[in-house]
Order: sequence, then structure tokens, then C-alpha cells
Amino acid sequence: MLSIPQYRQAITDYLHEKVQVKEPVNLYEPMVYILEQGGKRLRPVLVLMATEIFECDYKKALDAALAIEIFHNFSLVHDDIMDDAPIRRGKETVHEKWDLNTGILSGDAMLINAYQLFESYEGDTFKDLSKLFTRTAIQVCEGQQYDIDFETRDNVSIDDYLLMIEYKTAVLVGASLQMGAIVAGTSQECRDAIYQYGRLLGIAFQLQDDYLDAFGDPETFGKQAGGDIIENKKTFLYLKTLELANRSEALQLEHLYSINPPDNSGKIEAVKALFESCGAAELTKKEIENYTRIAFEVLDKIEISEKKKEPLRNFGKMLMERQV
Amino acid sequence: MLSIPQYRQAITDYLHEKVQVKEPVNLYEPMVYILEQGGKRLRPVLVLMATEIFECDYKKALDAALAIEIFHNFSLVHDDIMDDAPIRRGKETVHEKWDLNTGILSGDAMLINAYQLFESYEGDTFKDLSKLFTRTAIQVCEGQQYDIDFETRDNVSIDDYLLMIEYKTAVLVGASLQMGAIVAGTSQECRDAIYQYGRLLGIAFQLQDDYLDAFGDPETFGKQAGGDIIENKKTFLYLKTLELANRSEALQLEHLYSINPPDNSGKIEAVKALFESCGAAELTKKEIENYTRIAFEVLDKIEISEKKKEPLRNFGKMLMERQV
Repeated sequence: MLSIPQYRQAITDYLHEKVQVKEPVNLYEPMVYILEQGGKRLRPVLVLMATEIFECDYKKALDAALAIEIFHNFSLVHDDIMDDAPIRRGKETVHEKWDLNTGILSGDAMLINAYQLFESYEGDTFKDLSKLFTRTAIQVCEGQQYDIDFETRDNVSIDDYLLMIEYKTAVLVGASLQMGAIVAGTSQECRDAIYQYGRLLGIAFQLQDDYLDAFGDPETFGKQAGGDIIENKKTFLYLKTLELANRSEALQLEHLYSINPPDNSGKIEAVKALFESCGAAELTKKEIENYTRIAFEVLDKIEISEKKKEPLRNFGKMLMERQV
Repeated sequence: MLSIPQYRQAITDYLHEKVQVKEPVNLYEPMVYILEQGGKRLRPVLVLMATEIFECDYKKALDAALAIEIFHNFSLVHDDIMDDAPIRRGKETVHEKWDLNTGILSGDAMLINAYQLFESYEGDTFKDLSKLFTRTAIQVCEGQQYDIDFETRDNVSIDDYLLMIEYKTAVLVGASLQMGAIVAGTSQECRDAIYQYGRLLGIAFQLQDDYLDAFGDPETFGKQAGGDIIENKKTFLYLKTLELANRSEALQLEHLYSINPPDNSGKIEAVKALFESCGAAELTKKEIENYTRIAFEVLDKIEISEKKKEPLRNFGKMLMERQV
């Protein structure tokens, strides 16, 4: 098996070969622009890894891996419009560099292009990949809609939130792994198990993202500390605090989430103090550990050799070892 | 075989059954809203007609027909955003009734939903439908991009324009007919021929739309007379006039296309006079007749009984008999 950087290189080489600017250039230039920016390529790497774990040459999975990467970037282009985000990966977003219409239309073409890449597979493999992709893509749209809805909803429950991050983030991780299993032609049991591994790890990863946004070291985490708090985002930490807080603490938190002071540092510290004093910070860490543990238990049970499981386990560990 | 209104009813009934509001409602309500508005349902009717012409029960093609109708409406939702259109079919457009983000995301979900409907077909039928759909959907995006590009391009040729309307409008008519042929399991020859019939008729229809926009009776045509002229749209009439005009006429036309007077009636009359005096109006009518004639010749050659061809021929005639 290759190393993660080698899989990443294989993806990038294949992308250069397959995704090129053609006529009409205003449709395809933005596509090449965002895909060439790189990013971590986590999802396509997972497709290739899963393929090899089930005893199949990763090269057979390059089209599926590229489809996942193009889909992921499609969702970034459209999400950035919806979030009015000017910057992505340190560069201008597509709708900012070009315009709104270019962002919408190039995104649409990317989604269709992702489907096109499955056409290189025959028979059941083609249908299984297409069906999994469609189900996942719809869930990603639903997750994005829930995320938008939560901004203006008062009654978001912990379960609502978990479903949102599952759909918006985790199912695509599960689907990436399952695609490898489909290309390799494994049993339904293995396909389901590896999907669950990805889904659970995806949820753990997103919860950790929420946690680190408040309590992470901005140096190592790489995002603005307290960004979610500044934006009054109803994260797991926030919802758990409301659940655990007494009436006065809850009112205090809701008040803090209704103000947008010019200097946010006081607000961030006060919110974080509530996250901790109510026990939500500790409980969130527990929840992350829970999801991670169950993910690894699912992985343990998959009927492949220990040696084959190791790269997947290491990948999971690497994802979850980002430190506070 | 059923009549056109009966096919339309079959589509509408199936749509009511299959497309319903569910959670998250903000994603699915706009979808139901635009699909329930009706419209002429020309494309799905063509899918069902083509299925029966090739000796297969139209009911087998309902999923493919609905996919085409959902895709068509997806493209309307996103195009209306790009054109900043407030009204469609006499009602508020989706992004106007809700907002930009809802228009983008509901549109995305509709495109994915269209793909999902093909999953009820097995094996080669599934793959053939998916591939045709993907190729067509990409062409529709490319056609839309060309249309946007032409607004700011000076050097649009007649061939550029014909390719644009072929992609933006005609290929989906061809694909609708071919889907019926695929569901019915006909020969590749018949599939190609019926696609060409739809494509050629689609081009003729779009050219006629251009012609009627200038020279049609607003009472029967149903759109604002001279709308394309007011918007300085580079239609076939305009491009043909530039091709045929002498230098002074060409300058005159370009001048008229650079002004936007508060009362447009003088501009419209002057442009129409140029369209006629240069012979472009007459030549456009000839071109429409050409495409229509070749379309019917292609239909004549398809190896099915005369009785089976009649409904398709009548459909084409009905489309092209809208009067000046």
C-alpha cells in the first residue's frame, strides 16, 4: 500500500490529467481553479485506501475518488455563496473572483461531472456507486439546509444537531470508504461496516472541530479562536450547555449569543467559562471519545487482516490527534 | 396511445405521488412549489410518447419522464437567479419568494433527485439513461454559459449562436425522446434517429421563438413584443442582419442595440425595419422551415409504422404552428 502523501499525489496527478479548461472557458476555469487549490484531499485518499484494503489496485478507484473530490468542491463553491465567504484556503472564493452566476453554474457543472466519472465502471459497480453517491449528495444538501435553518431556530435539540453534522459532513466520509469497497467488489457486510467507520469518525471529527474552535490552540488549530462563538453558532458545546445549565446560566448564555460587541474577547471568555462551568466542555470531550471508540470497534470487527486495518486505523488516529 | 392532455395528466398524477414536502421543509417546499406550477410539461410528455411509439407501456417511463421534468425545473430555478427574474409562469420565482440560498440549494437537490429517479431501471437501461442524462445536463450548462458569454461578446457568429440554442434548449428535447426509446429497449439506430428529430425540432422551435419575439402577435404569442430587442439580445435575427447588412446599416443596428430609451417603441420599430430590409427576417423564416423539414425527414426514415409516427408528427406540427 502507498502512504497518504503518495495517494494524495496519485489523486493530484489524475486530476491534472482529467480536469482541464475547455470551452466554454468561463464554465471550466473556475472548476480547475478550485480543484487545483489542493486542500487535504482526505476524501479521495480514503476512497483509494479502502480499495487497496480490500485487495484491489487503487488505480481502479481513481475515477470514483476524483468524483468524490469534485463533489466536495462543488459543495464548497455553493456553500461559500450561501455563507457569503470571500476567502477559502487563503484564496478568493469562486463567486468572489468571478461572480455569483459563475459560482452557481460552475458548481452545477461540477456536480454533473462527478456523476460522469462513474461511467467508467460497469454493471452493478456503476449502479452501486451512483446510488450511494446520490443518497449521500441528497443528505449533504439536507445537512446544509438544517445548518441554515438552525441559525434562526430556537428549539434545536442535541439530536437535531447530531443529525445535521452527520448529513453535512460524516456521510461523505462514510461514502468515500464505501466507494473503495464497492470498486473492490467486497461483501455487503464489509461495505456497511467500513461506511459506519467513516460515518462515526466523521461525527467525532466534527464534534472535535466544534470543541477546538472554542478551546483549541489557534496556533495549531489554524482557525480564528472562538469563531463559532463570535458567529453565535449553535454548536454541540452551546446546545449541551443550554441542556445542563440552570435558568440563570441559560439566560446568561442566550444573552451573550444575542450580542455582537466590537471587541469579542470578553464575550468569548464569558461563553467559554459557561461551557466549562456547566460541564459541557468535559461532556463534549467524552462524546468525541465515545464516537471515536465506537468507530474503532466497528473497524476491529471488519473481516480483513490486522495488517490491512492498520492504515485505516492510523488515518483515524491522525484525524483525531489534533491537539487542544 | 393516449392524447397529449392525457399524458400530461399522467405526469401530473405521478408527480403528486412522488414529489412531496418532507423534512427539511425549507429544502423541499420550493421544489414542490415550482413543480406544482405546471407549465406545459412538453418534455415529459415526449418521453412517454416515445415509449409508446416503440411498443412499450408508457407507465414504465414515468420515472424517466419525471426526472426530465425535475431537471428542467432545476434549470429554471438556477437560471432565474442568474437572470434576476422575479416572475415565472405568472408567479414569484423561488429565489424571490424565499431567498437566494434557498434557490441555490433547492435547485441542487432537484438535480440530484432527477438522477435518483433513474434508479428504478435495471442494468443497461439504468446506465444508458444516466449517461444520456449526464451528457445532456452538461450541454445545458454549457449552453447557459455561452448565452451569458454572448451578452458581452462582440464576435458571436451564427454558428456560435446555433450551438448555444442547440445546447441550451434542443438537446433536452432530443434526450426526452431518446429516453422513451431507451426505456422501450429499441435499437441504437432508432434511438439516434428519434434524438435527432427532437434536436432539430428544438432548434427550429427556438429560432421561431426568436422570430415571434420580434414579429409575432403579442396577443397569441403571449410574451412582450420586442422583448429581445429591448434587452439587446443577440438573436439569430440580429446576427443574420449584421451578416447581411452594409456598413451603414450595421452601424445603425449596433447603435440601436447600444441605447435603452425610456419608450422603446421607436427602437423596436427601427430594429424590426432593419431585420426586414436586410432580408434577415425572411431568411430566418427559411431557416425555421429548413430545420423543421429536415426534422420531419428524419422522422419519416425511422422504421416504425406510419400510424406510430403520426402522434410525433402532430406534436411537431403543433409546436411549429404557432402563428406570427
